[in-house]
Amino acid sequence: MTNKSERNLLIAQSGGPTMVINQSLVGIVEAAKKRREVDKILGALYGFEGILKKKFIDLKSESKKVLEQVAKTPGSALYSCRFEPKEEDCRAALEIMKQFQVHYFFYIGGNDSAVAASKLNEIAQQQSYELRVFHVPKTVDNDLLLTHHCPGYGSAARYVALAFMGDDMDNRSLPGVKINICMGRNAGWLTGAAALARQSKDCGPHLIYLPERKLTIKKFVEDVLEVNARLNRVQVAVSEGVVGEDGRILIQSTSIREELKQLQMGEIVEWLDMLAKVEQASGDVKRDSFGNVQLSGSGVLGDFLATAVKMYAFKHKGIKKLRVRADTLGYPQRSFMEVASPVDMQEARLVGEKAVEYCMRGDIDGSVIIKRVGTEDDEYAIETEYIELKKIADPSRPSHEQIKRVPDDFINADGNDVTEDFIKYARPLVGKLPQKGFLSYKIV
Amino acid sequence: MTNKSERNLLIAQSGGPTMVINQSLVGIVEAAKKRREVDKILGALYGFEGILKKKFIDLKSESKKVLEQVAKTPGSALYSCRFEPKEEDCRAALEIMKQFQVHYFFYIGGNDSAVAASKLNEIAQQQSYELRVFHVPKTVDNDLLLTHHCPGYGSAARYVALAFMGDDMDNRSLPGVKINICMGRNAGWLTGAAALARQSKDCGPHLIYLPERKLTIKKFVEDVLEVNARLNRVQVAVSEGVVGEDGRILIQSTSIREELKQLQMGEIVEWLDMLAKVEQASGDVKRDSFGNVQLSGSGVLGDFLATAVKMYAFKHKGIKKLRVRADTLGYPQRSFMEVASPVDMQEARLVGEKAVEYCMRGDIDGSVIIKRVGTEDDEYAIETEYIELKKIADPSRPSHEQIKRVPDDFINADGNDVTEDFIKYARPLVGKLPQKGFLSYKIV
Repeated sequence: MTNKSERNLLIAQSGGPTMVINQSLVGIVEAAKKRREVDKILGALYGFEGILKKKFIDLKSESKKVLEQVAKTPGSALYSCRFEPKEEDCRAALEIMKQFQVHYFFYIGGNDSAVAASKLNEIAQQQSYELRVFHVPKTVDNDLLLTHHCPGYGSAARYVALAFMGDDMDNRSLPGVKINICMGRNAGWLTGAAALARQSKDCGPHLIYLPERKLTIKKFVEDVLEVNARLNRVQVAVSEGVVGEDGRILIQSTSIREELKQLQMGEIVEWLDMLAKVEQASGDVKRDSFGNVQLSGSGVLGDFLATAVKMYAFKHKGIKKLRVRADTLGYPQRSFMEVASPVDMQEARLVGEKAVEYCMRGDIDGSVIIKRVGTEDDEYAIETEYIELKKIADPSRPSHEQIKRVPDDFINADGNDVTEDFIKYARPLVGKLPQKGFLSYKIV
Repeated sequence: MTNKSERNLLIAQSGGPTMVINQSLVGIVEAAKKRREVDKILGALYGFEGILKKKFIDLKSESKKVLEQVAKTPGSALYSCRFEPKEEDCRAALEIMKQFQVHYFFYIGGNDSAVAASKLNEIAQQQSYELRVFHVPKTVDNDLLLTHHCPGYGSAARYVALAFMGDDMDNRSLPGVKINICMGRNAGWLTGAAALARQSKDCGPHLIYLPERKLTIKKFVEDVLEVNARLNRVQVAVSEGVVGEDGRILIQSTSIREELKQLQMGEIVEWLDMLAKVEQASGDVKRDSFGNVQLSGSGVLGDFLATAVKMYAFKHKGIKKLRVRADTLGYPQRSFMEVASPVDMQEARLVGEKAVEYCMRGDIDGSVIIKRVGTEDDEYAIETEYIELKKIADPSRPSHEQIKRVPDDFINADGNDVTEDFIKYARPLVGKLPQKGFLSYKIV
């Protein structure tokens, strides 16, 4: 800290990391270093929480070499938080920013972070303190409004496509029902990317379930058994956020419980009740500050669906030796750096740089959106655009109401797959995928 | 089929696929193509089961281009099985081989497959039918006897190391207890490879649990909470095959249940009982033909351990908001082709080629073992060696008794980590790993 008048810049990262979130960080730092308008370049550790604790580090003194290494490292280099600031938190943060003479604030994050930034921005405006608040988009969920896609998505989508591709070959070798759970609480973008794994007609995933469509156990299992009867195997992509008829996630859905009872599968209901009891006896910790129930870091949805398939097949179809397995793709989806999408890395860097460029235009707040140039049939090209902060995140509305869900024309009529339009949309974002090799399989 | 006298070669793949199992297949085919002693080169689809059903395909007519593409594709290109042939199955298979004039049989697989090959070999010898049975090693578990390491292990180990590396950075960003379950039913080789992810003193994994050491809930949770108290985060590697004091896998262990009750964590016992009840109501399908309980394709062990940590922390330490998550690394460990280890790919090809070379020496049976040249301190180099089949797989003993477990000097005294010697052993097998970048983190 110093007493002479400074115009300092502060960066923080928030929410779940992506493979390319540090590209945006480095994009901001490198662009800000070139700006005479900027004195110190500070990083707040652990997002908004770190601001409140004044956990600031100096980013200007980091060498280009270190920064470039950090850009290629997963996780949030400034660490992160899942913290929903209340009005008093925003006021407290603003006081600290005044004290540190911060006039430029860059918050790299998703929906929740955009709303938090927007709230802070509103209070700074009320107090006529010049704080140029910029939200820098990142999210593997790809669910930010107005932008064509979000930095972080392409790399996670690439991981998902590659995981399905390999797993499908494994499932051909030892055939069975294979269910893979993908990240994406409110939107099915990442789960849909599993479709990119297909290279021939019988390639998995054969079924894809997104949170945008309501699910019943009967429809799900019948779908699964139909493909399995046809191909003697089936690979299924399911979003962690899929919901029952009542709109609640499966393991908490009342309609799913009712259906299970009707299907004489009450043992599964008992099991879910038992899970809730165990959770309660452990202090009920599966909820973050936004009230979101923990979905990742648990295999319960996959195990639930695998069990439902086995029990339904056994009780209603007399199928006894069905091989059913589930994998929850988990944190490698956002941290398995070796398969980061090259185009995603470039764009994440670019939105960081562009945020600085836009910020220096005047006393404005905002975010950066990505626009696809031309149509999805043209060669892939994008441009970025400045947008006012409140347009992507209205501070007066909860973040989960400000989400871009997968549109209807990207989902098939049966609600168990994505369409060609979705594939056209997503393919350029993940980069080139390897070609699988097949023998000819003619019996002699 | 033909009536003139032929000397045909048959290849089959068995057990869980690896990323490089098709390298061995292509190694055999390409080497056999050059041999005048060999007429047809046949592949049996679905392993031993396919032999019994005469599901044979012609491999000699596949182009080099297709074969090279197949070599780079995960899964078992000839498909696989988990089938323990009884004596009558071996007799039936032998009759079919006679019918197809098969005199060379290559079975690419792990322990179970080696024992199956050995049984078949014994019967062929009894009948004085010239069948040169060769076992070609593959297994991500790395648990075959006598060989320095197994093809398939290096690539799976590389995936595990990279997954832990990225996940550790993610866990720094949003700190908590993170448990990752790795494959390896009877031996901890693959789980131990997580240690290769470490690049600085505080890098995860901080704790590693192998099936070679018995586990108690109290010791496990106290270990976890100790590291978490020190670093405010902890990343834990656990083998899917870890056992309780009674030597049984955790979710079936009586000693673990007794301990849970003593620790006032009876809710978890009820939950495990409920799981067993659900499984029973689904037809008890979680057992393969070897009597092995299904471990992969389920998140239950991770969820069990995560719950045990939360409940213990809550009930015995008064810790309320502990963030605990578990990922089960699952099938990507053996099918996520993009990170196959280059040295593993080469060696898998080599053992296939060498098996053909050894086989053509005379009327012998055998397998190929890999020997490390020099010591673990020398530059990495290997050579292969011929070995009699019965030496790696005694047909009269069950396969699970013929397993190479992680030796004592590779496991630390506390039983919660591997040693430097293990790391020296495993590092060259996975290839070069990326360097993580770190900021300096000095608070201003």
